[in-house]
Amino acid sequence: VSATAHPAVRTGTTVSELEAVLTAAARAAEPLAALRPRERARMLTAAADALDAAGEELVPLAIEESGLPEQRLRGELRRTTVQLRTFAEVLADGGYLHAVIDRAEPDTPLGPRPDLRRMLIPLGPVLVFAASNFPFAFSVAGGDTASALAAGCPVVLKAHPGHPRLSARTGELVADALRTAGAPDGTLGVIFGLDTGTKALRDPRMTAAAFTGSAAAGRALFDIAAARPVPIPFYGELGSLNPVFVTAGALAARSAEVADGYVASFTLGTGQFCTKPGLLFLPKGHGLQEALVRAVHAVPAARMLHPGVYEGYRGRSLAMSRADGVHTLVEGGTAQDLTAAPTLLATDVETLLNHRDLLLAEAFGPLSVVVSYNGQDELLSAAEAFDGNLTATVHAEPGEAEFVRPLLACLRERAGRLIYNGWPTGVAVTAAMHHGGPYPSATSALHTSVGSAAISRFLRPVSYQGMPQELLPEALRDSNPLGIPQHVNSV
Amino acid sequence: VSATAHPAVRTGTTVSELEAVLTAAARAAEPLAALRPRERARMLTAAADALDAAGEELVPLAIEESGLPEQRLRGELRRTTVQLRTFAEVLADGGYLHAVIDRAEPDTPLGPRPDLRRMLIPLGPVLVFAASNFPFAFSVAGGDTASALAAGCPVVLKAHPGHPRLSARTGELVADALRTAGAPDGTLGVIFGLDTGTKALRDPRMTAAAFTGSAAAGRALFDIAAARPVPIPFYGELGSLNPVFVTAGALAARSAEVADGYVASFTLGTGQFCTKPGLLFLPKGHGLQEALVRAVHAVPAARMLHPGVYEGYRGRSLAMSRADGVHTLVEGGTAQDLTAAPTLLATDVETLLNHRDLLLAEAFGPLSVVVSYNGQDELLSAAEAFDGNLTATVHAEPGEAEFVRPLLACLRERAGRLIYNGWPTGVAVTAAMHHGGPYPSATSALHTSVGSAAISRFLRPVSYQGMPQELLPEALRDSNPLGIPQHVNSV
Repeated sequence: VSATAHPAVRTGTTVSELEAVLTAAARAAEPLAALRPRERARMLTAAADALDAAGEELVPLAIEESGLPEQRLRGELRRTTVQLRTFAEVLADGGYLHAVIDRAEPDTPLGPRPDLRRMLIPLGPVLVFAASNFPFAFSVAGGDTASALAAGCPVVLKAHPGHPRLSARTGELVADALRTAGAPDGTLGVIFGLDTGTKALRDPRMTAAAFTGSAAAGRALFDIAAARPVPIPFYGELGSLNPVFVTAGALAARSAEVADGYVASFTLGTGQFCTKPGLLFLPKGHGLQEALVRAVHAVPAARMLHPGVYEGYRGRSLAMSRADGVHTLVEGGTAQDLTAAPTLLATDVETLLNHRDLLLAEAFGPLSVVVSYNGQDELLSAAEAFDGNLTATVHAEPGEAEFVRPLLACLRERAGRLIYNGWPTGVAVTAAMHHGGPYPSATSALHTSVGSAAISRFLRPVSYQGMPQELLPEALRDSNPLGIPQHVNSV
Repeated sequence: VSATAHPAVRTGTTVSELEAVLTAAARAAEPLAALRPRERARMLTAAADALDAAGEELVPLAIEESGLPEQRLRGELRRTTVQLRTFAEVLADGGYLHAVIDRAEPDTPLGPRPDLRRMLIPLGPVLVFAASNFPFAFSVAGGDTASALAAGCPVVLKAHPGHPRLSARTGELVADALRTAGAPDGTLGVIFGLDTGTKALRDPRMTAAAFTGSAAAGRALFDIAAARPVPIPFYGELGSLNPVFVTAGALAARSAEVADGYVASFTLGTGQFCTKPGLLFLPKGHGLQEALVRAVHAVPAARMLHPGVYEGYRGRSLAMSRADGVHTLVEGGTAQDLTAAPTLLATDVETLLNHRDLLLAEAFGPLSVVVSYNGQDELLSAAEAFDGNLTATVHAEPGEAEFVRPLLACLRERAGRLIYNGWPTGVAVTAAMHHGGPYPSATSALHTSVGSAAISRFLRPVSYQGMPQELLPEALRDSNPLGIPQHVNSV
């Protein structure tokens, strides 16, 4: 696609272009919501097919704009289309509607009760802010878009400036596929420019927003959403440190595996994942330093996504390495072409607790800190210092349950996903996934941005009281024409 | 209970008293969350038993402070204890935990997937602002408290100044019953004073808040919750107009029933219900005026809750009746002792749309407006003018589906509960109830404050990845010792 065809890619979306996108989204809301879940499933499948078929066009564009390697991007595109197909399955199943039927009951302790039926319906147009670090899976056709469309909400997608041409082209392909499969015009629109995004966030036609990115940007947008005359839910996935805690038993049983697994995880994607392990807690006198340094040296330098994250990585590495009590194990080099080699620092719990603002703040890029701890009490005091995180990981061995239980209890209050003998990078797209957590990892601890439960962010309940069958939505009729799970007279 | 025993009742809670309540609530969070759902069910049942046993003490206190009639208050107390028992059933069932188990899968389109298990856990201490109009059912031991305790969250209850002694005594009884049934100290604390409430709302130990009351107060508190360094969910149930739309068919078939039902509904509880029908739409030339006036005259004057709502009712009635195009059908008298007789006004759609700020704003008290409409288009233009409402009601007859369907489609976007041939007052406590709706009827359109689904406001998901059975919560173990619904390998 030529830049001429997409003037907005270069200059940002104009005020009148934005108005057209918002109007189209608002007009699409009712017809899109009126479609049967299986009809929307076909649209998501059509979008997935179109993206799968366009890999040879999209992946080179993504490489050019993001600097990410081909194999990674091919995998990410596959993840993106699997995600769209997963939501098609969610729609075909229909359980996501939470259809509840309480039949009229003449005799309850509080007197007669009318027939009441409840289901979830779409909120309306959703504004999605794309992320830079997953040009497919958290961008135009990513999880936020897939779950909002599945819910029956039109999507206005604010593209990330890190991959504008890929965003425009993905938007075209997906919008065409949706339209061909029967979606109303305006079901997906792509807009460009930070100011355009905040204008859209303030627009009364938008009914929810989703965001993946930095804590500073996410909080600023959250504040705008909350301050509207009609506040709307803002689902931000912001920052996370993803600490990893290793017991003496795990160290004794498999120290090489721990060292290699950790280094692979924090350098994966050049450390540009929300789930990058930012700290590794090891027992004092762990003796793992040499293996860690060796593993880090084996990781080649790689290009970072854009100047912003590159400069952030350089600055944060330097500031952290200069703190009293912090030692540099590997000084990662950086070069003008945005390439970065990984940095590994080391410290102890006392230093960590004395430099919370510096050491307990998310640092994007291939940078992590090894923290030695002296016994269970000190480890717990470190765990308690964390704010909300997407993940927390424990490496332990059988027989250490007494040591691990209080740690897990503490971490459960501070993280959305607890991992045992694994690594936080790698987020499965499944019903049991929770990708979220207490603030600031997410602005709403109640919701996930990955996995099938993500659809619930864009749905609200409505009850029907005493409604005749012919006026009820199909999902709530006795004849159950959609064939979905209905919970009749449940608690 | 003597005022000496509760100095806080008169003077407001002191800073050190508040600190003690907040500290106790924070300390109670972990042990309360650690209890099995059935153990918490026993606590809720014990609280219900204690309240049922104390009716002879509590109802006279409630009459004295609220001015509400005895029969109503006895019924409301019963509703309150039924509500506590309903949540005990929800806990015994265990489905509310949404336990999801995705077993490890070596071969997925995205590669091997680890064992992932997800469930809901309590958020932590919850701040509840009590309402004035239901001294039992939306106060100390009301629905917000019951659902938060059921979720496993300690409750800090900010009492309403309309019934301080009843609040203090209810708090004592319930806290004692909970403690005797094994709840940790601090599971329920009662605080007094507006300033105390906002201090508590800003306290970092509070993890969520619930509120029932006016749009102005609710929005001010919502803004505080959203502006915290760590924002927390604020579940406000604010204002609602609850319009009722009557078709020509319904009018022809049962005009007397419509007139009597409407007047009974808008004057119930002296019009001090969130679900009071504020407007009745009748076809032009409806001829119902005489029957309506007669029915209103038959309603005796009754004491209102407190000077605030009494003055509001007087002021709003006067202002609305003076608007151009608004006619007074019945001028409700008011007296110095806070008693009020009902007011009935009449207008048409054109006037309504010309005076939206005045006529489309909630007015507490026995005041309602009859609006005549001229055909379907005009009725739809009126329906479209509404913001979010708790309810919207349609009275129609078989054969009118073509007239009713577009009206229901419009109302579904603007209300949480759609009622057919009934009245909005009367809110069943059941799984299919939705008591909420788009803003401003609720600050979160995703949640209900009545019915068993209200528990979900105080729960957040957590996922366990690759966790050994002995370290998993009981709800997620293969052996399922709690005997709860587990969704295994679901979509």
